[in-house]
Amino acid sequence: MLSEFDLIYQYFASHRTTQKSVALGVGDDCALLQPAPGQQMAISSDMLVEGRHFFAGENPERLGHKALAVNLSDLAAMGAKPVGFTLAFSLPEANAEWLAGFSKGLLRLADRYQCQLIGGDTTKGPLNICITVFGEIPPGQALRRDAAKAGDDIWVSGTLGDARLALAAYLGEITLSDELHEQAANRMHLPEPRVTLGLALRGIAHAALDISDGLCGDLGHILKRSQLGARLNCDALPAGPVLRQQTPELQRQFCLAGGDDYELCFTAAPDHRADVLRAAELAQTPVTRIGTMTASPGLVLTDASDEVIELAITSFDHFRSP
Amino acid sequence: MLSEFDLIYQYFASHRTTQKSVALGVGDDCALLQPAPGQQMAISSDMLVEGRHFFAGENPERLGHKALAVNLSDLAAMGAKPVGFTLAFSLPEANAEWLAGFSKGLLRLADRYQCQLIGGDTTKGPLNICITVFGEIPPGQALRRDAAKAGDDIWVSGTLGDARLALAAYLGEITLSDELHEQAANRMHLPEPRVTLGLALRGIAHAALDISDGLCGDLGHILKRSQLGARLNCDALPAGPVLRQQTPELQRQFCLAGGDDYELCFTAAPDHRADVLRAAELAQTPVTRIGTMTASPGLVLTDASDEVIELAITSFDHFRSP
Repeated sequence: MLSEFDLIYQYFASHRTTQKSVALGVGDDCALLQPAPGQQMAISSDMLVEGRHFFAGENPERLGHKALAVNLSDLAAMGAKPVGFTLAFSLPEANAEWLAGFSKGLLRLADRYQCQLIGGDTTKGPLNICITVFGEIPPGQALRRDAAKAGDDIWVSGTLGDARLALAAYLGEITLSDELHEQAANRMHLPEPRVTLGLALRGIAHAALDISDGLCGDLGHILKRSQLGARLNCDALPAGPVLRQQTPELQRQFCLAGGDDYELCFTAAPDHRADVLRAAELAQTPVTRIGTMTASPGLVLTDASDEVIELAITSFDHFRSP
Repeated sequence: MLSEFDLIYQYFASHRTTQKSVALGVGDDCALLQPAPGQQMAISSDMLVEGRHFFAGENPERLGHKALAVNLSDLAAMGAKPVGFTLAFSLPEANAEWLAGFSKGLLRLADRYQCQLIGGDTTKGPLNICITVFGEIPPGQALRRDAAKAGDDIWVSGTLGDARLALAAYLGEITLSDELHEQAANRMHLPEPRVTLGLALRGIAHAALDISDGLCGDLGHILKRSQLGARLNCDALPAGPVLRQQTPELQRQFCLAGGDDYELCFTAAPDHRADVLRAAELAQTPVTRIGTMTASPGLVLTDASDEVIELAITSFDHFRSP
């Protein structure tokens, strides 16, 4: 059995990223960050629990990727540039194979986004992973939820619903071929944080957030905090390539109220459409215009001919769900 | 049953502290911190797991206090001034009574140290609390573990061992009267982070850390990172008021290898003794000189007459312990 300190160093010492903003990394009571002059620090914490955010026995390499990806997605949604992160986790036993896989998936993504592991905590207990991530952003440039304006276009990056479709197949709600299930499952297990797009949207987008609990519920946060409403064109929603092969009803349902999408939903003025498309091209991330922010409150769903449609949709809730 | 978002706002919205370094608090994808010009951010994460760091069924108000206290203790050990923290936790059910108690104990301590809750995450799962804390410190003034010098005095704040004594009584290893057990248990459940002392020691102490896993094990980190040894006078160790009534053997054992003390252990040059004592007086925190850093490696235990004594001591390890 390894000691706590051996654990930390053995598996995470291979990390290559060194950020100039990190004055002191792992190994003291605290890490020390020195933000570039005048920059703000964007900070977000996410906790992943076995049996709730991922299945028991989940592949550790994918889990390492996802644990950091969902945090980087929060930086992306703010338009912040990744700098570093702390990793606290409890696991039932100091399993070398698990740690090797987990650290590999985690550090590969960290290195890719130049996000340095600066500290953490390990302990024994039911599997639980808590990452806190730090990014830099110039004052006034953050893409805040309360910054949408009436008349703004509503955009979404990438595609929606394939992660929820994979979950439905795991749960036996639907049947997919092995090949399609694997394709959809990659969206669930290996989300790609839209960091580059978030950076490219600085100064162009007004409000933004990342979609983790389903488009409708998450867009609702922008509506609430910006004190506005929205009109959403359900026929414009970019269903994922596997979901696109399902019924129109299922496509609509999983695009609107899926979960685990980790795409960006953002608003921008109509006269910035060309800028949005250029930012998307620079970031090599497709974007789709799906609606309009309105002065009148509430979320209205329409079809392509702007006819209102009625749908019962619910946001994902970690306490309400079974 | 409450929803996740209701939970966050209902219990934590009473928080009064507003820090000028916090540009954006709870409610967006990220919080935004704007450190005072030129200041470094000190960052630490600690995870507390039920059944490991605290007993199942622990009083939630005490638990809220302790969860933040152990993190503030890390800022103290660095000499950093608290600014804010994120709180991520999983709990088996959205229990209103538990949340009321937990938030009360947590926010009371947060308000006392002007440390603002800036974000977090709540989810369903085995009880687990992960706090990441942020403090400010001028560059070059952090009390780092690698900064001890040969010939430095070794100091410790407050008293040691009462928390470990309370645990021994809980576990039936020893017997205490109800009154004494309660007194000792307060040290275990309601540690007081030495934030004021840490700030007062800036520019005076060389190396510092907080004692969470036992004096010998934790002092070992300073030895290792400063590439030095130490001579520790076991007769000078400040046993807690309850431990002081036990046998000399038990006093020694629990002072050297207790756990949950959350006192500062720090080193300073002998010609700064008066400065150390003045800092301690300003912080209204007693300090005791307990040894000397040495150029020769290894930790040597002595009695008051500087005779070497042999003791089998072990540091606390969250994976090695049962």
